[in-house]
Amino acid sequence: MYPYYPEIRRFPYLDHRHAQQRLTFVLVHGSWADARFWDDIAAVLRGNGHVVYTPEYAGHGGDPNKNVTHAMITKSVVDFITKLNLRDIVLVGHSFGGTVVQKAAEQVPERIKRLVFWDAFVLKDGESVVDEVPPQTRQGFEQLRASSRDDTIMLPFPLFRDLFVNTAALDVAKWIYASVAPEPAKPLFEKLNLKAFYALPTPKSYVYFYQDNVLPQGEGFGWNPHMSIRLGQFRLIVGDGDHMTDSRTRPAMVAQKLYEAGRD
Amino acid sequence: MYPYYPEIRRFPYLDHRHAQQRLTFVLVHGSWADARFWDDIAAVLRGNGHVVYTPEYAGHGGDPNKNVTHAMITKSVVDFITKLNLRDIVLVGHSFGGTVVQKAAEQVPERIKRLVFWDAFVLKDGESVVDEVPPQTRQGFEQLRASSRDDTIMLPFPLFRDLFVNTAALDVAKWIYASVAPEPAKPLFEKLNLKAFYALPTPKSYVYFYQDNVLPQGEGFGWNPHMSIRLGQFRLIVGDGDHMTDSRTRPAMVAQKLYEAGRD
Amino acid sequence: MYPYYPEIRRFPYLDHRHAQQRLTFVLVHGSWADARFWDDIAAVLRGNGHVVYTPEYAGHGGDPNKNVTHAMITKSVVDFITKLNLRDIVLVGHSFGGTVVQKAAEQVPERIKRLVFWDAFVLKDGESVVDEVPPQTRQGFEQLRASSRDDTIMLPFPLFRDLFVNTAALDVAKWIYASVAPEPAKPLFEKLNLKAFYALPTPKSYVYFYQDNVLPQGEGFGWNPHMSIRLGQFRLIVGDGDHMTDSRTRPAMVAQKLYEAGRD
Repeated sequence: MYPYYPEIRRFPYLDHRHAQQRLTFVLVHGSWADARFWDDIAAVLRGNGHVVYTPEYAGHGGDPNKNVTHAMITKSVVDFITKLNLRDIVLVGHSFGGTVVQKAAEQVPERIKRLVFWDAFVLKDGESVVDEVPPQTRQGFEQLRASSRDDTIMLPFPLFRDLFVNTAALDVAKWIYASVAPEPAKPLFEKLNLKAFYALPTPKSYVYFYQDNVLPQGEGFGWNPHMSIRLGQFRLIVGDGDHMTDSRTRPAMVAQKLYEAGRD
Repeated sequence: MYPYYPEIRRFPYLDHRHAQQRLTFVLVHGSWADARFWDDIAAVLRGNGHVVYTPEYAGHGGDPNKNVTHAMITKSVVDFITKLNLRDIVLVGHSFGGTVVQKAAEQVPERIKRLVFWDAFVLKDGESVVDEVPPQTRQGFEQLRASSRDDTIMLPFPLFRDLFVNTAALDVAKWIYASVAPEPAKPLFEKLNLKAFYALPTPKSYVYFYQDNVLPQGEGFGWNPHMSIRLGQFRLIVGDGDHMTDSRTRPAMVAQKLYEAGRD
Repeated sequence: MYPYYPEIRRFPYLDHRHAQQRLTFVLVHGSWADARFWDDIAAVLRGNGHVVYTPEYAGHGGDPNKNVTHAMITKSVVDFITKLNLRDIVLVGHSFGGTVVQKAAEQVPERIKRLVFWDAFVLKDGESVVDEVPPQTRQGFEQLRASSRDDTIMLPFPLFRDLFVNTAALDVAKWIYASVAPEPAKPLFEKLNLKAFYALPTPKSYVYFYQDNVLPQGEGFGWNPHMSIRLGQFRLIVGDGDHMTDSRTRPAMVAQKLYEAGRD
């Protein structure tokens, strides 16, 4: 609508590349992804002076065992944090990773500076992930699960392309899809006890990308505000990305949003 | 918030001007518009290598007969497609044009590659357009209809300026308004049988511009997600425009969004 | 997603710096702020040729008396307008200032060209501000009020930082917080008679910044559309800011949005 503003530049912070607070990030990926999801984002964050960890969790990455539970996944992340004796961390969960962050935070709250949910599930006490998807999607998941030999769910490309990487060019969509593995189904259907999570005073942020359409955004579903408001007081940061594309095509944009969510 | 990112540029597609998949677009305008609505957008799309058609439909453009039905309007578009023997088309509907796309898709599904709804009505089976507008707007339409001699509805300039071209400068708003003709009222009040539409497996996209305020966006009304989710699985593309301004002031932005919605 | 478009430039208005309609703005700030809130925005507007007034109101700025009513606040603004004999004004309210604009408009409607609400409360007849905040926030306000000696509410920094200046760097957040004074509590809890407001034919606009999270945006709360639709027909303008940061870091962006909301 308008080209460029000659904005008043009085604050030294405006040249943000020289002024970022040094943070320690632990980044927890979601379903149909592995720790490589974070590679480019982590590279940008490290370039900006942050310390970044991207733990892999049970049933994902190199793990041949797909018969995992939500507790096993959480244990992977908690063990990673405790073995490295990480403290004062910004714990970030993307998508399904939000539920892992919820459960991990219950176990090592004293090590966490702030929780960041990026288009991530924030389940109510007693809910499962599939309780938060529209009935049609849930039915699709159940069919895909039933048709697998090892209780996993593999997303067909057309669904992945339209819902997870909707803003990507086709070649990028295919390139990202090439790294997608069948997702262990069980953790998506497990109902989680989250009473301890909802008693935590840890500061929280929610990063919402408004082209993300993995869930409809409204009418009783969605990332923000449907799930974000469960956090109580939280810091909102909004970007224009979708669910997965920007991790590969605009990692610096994502890194900036995660930094804005994670800083003091 | 942040000026420019030195984004990692690994994908050749990032220079999108050299890499667009060649598509055949059929663009269907909405109410208070005619086929000229698409002129600038079509010019950009053609410049990017696409084939673009902008059929006029009954009761609009040069047609002196305003006594038309929704079926006559749909027939104009379907006949256009069949007479030119178009195949593999991306059929785009804007605003009221969404209902035309819904009915046309029922008749020539085998010719359609993908349906794109741009801030467009996606009616439920048995609904009319006025069933989806707030009660106050419906009442306004009924009064304007009753006061016309030929069963049309003409929008007063203040309403058009604030709801249809809200982001435009006043001279642009007036210039666009100068091309607005009284709209045949009947098709807006017709309840449509859409059972066949909801059985179509055709891929679908929804383009939503977040400054569009023709309908309130929430509280039981609106383009996205209120109507978009009726499409079932769909690809979402979001832009920052309003309902009509950008077709004239930023046609390249609109063309890019329609391309992102229409490509494979 | 895409870098720059070679947009068609046919309209002289596109160089907006040479073409702004001259307006008279009266800017009414919100809670936990005073008239200095507008300093940078007013400077930009004046630089673009507009006449700008930023009246202080009772209980704020230099006023030592915190024991004020909503009527006293409204009187400050109405008296300012009438004493200077201002006419044809664009009356802008930010946040709590929306309720002041609502009541002031009832008293001097003939002097007002257009009302602009910027992430502002638009109360229903008989409501108070706290009727529009989530139960948890209301409870927090009541506790803070009870703990004060002079019936004011002071926001703790962590809450202010996450809800009011969420996109700001920490030093900017602290710098803005340094100008925050305890807010008189009573006007936030007063239920307002707004029958006359809802009978006014004055044109109205709503400016919504989508990173504003002072209220959750949906699920029965929020600026737009939850409160904006109460205006009936209104012009929507959307920006990417939060509640308070941009007034200091991007005043030219805010000024442009207010101009787009206020012009004919």
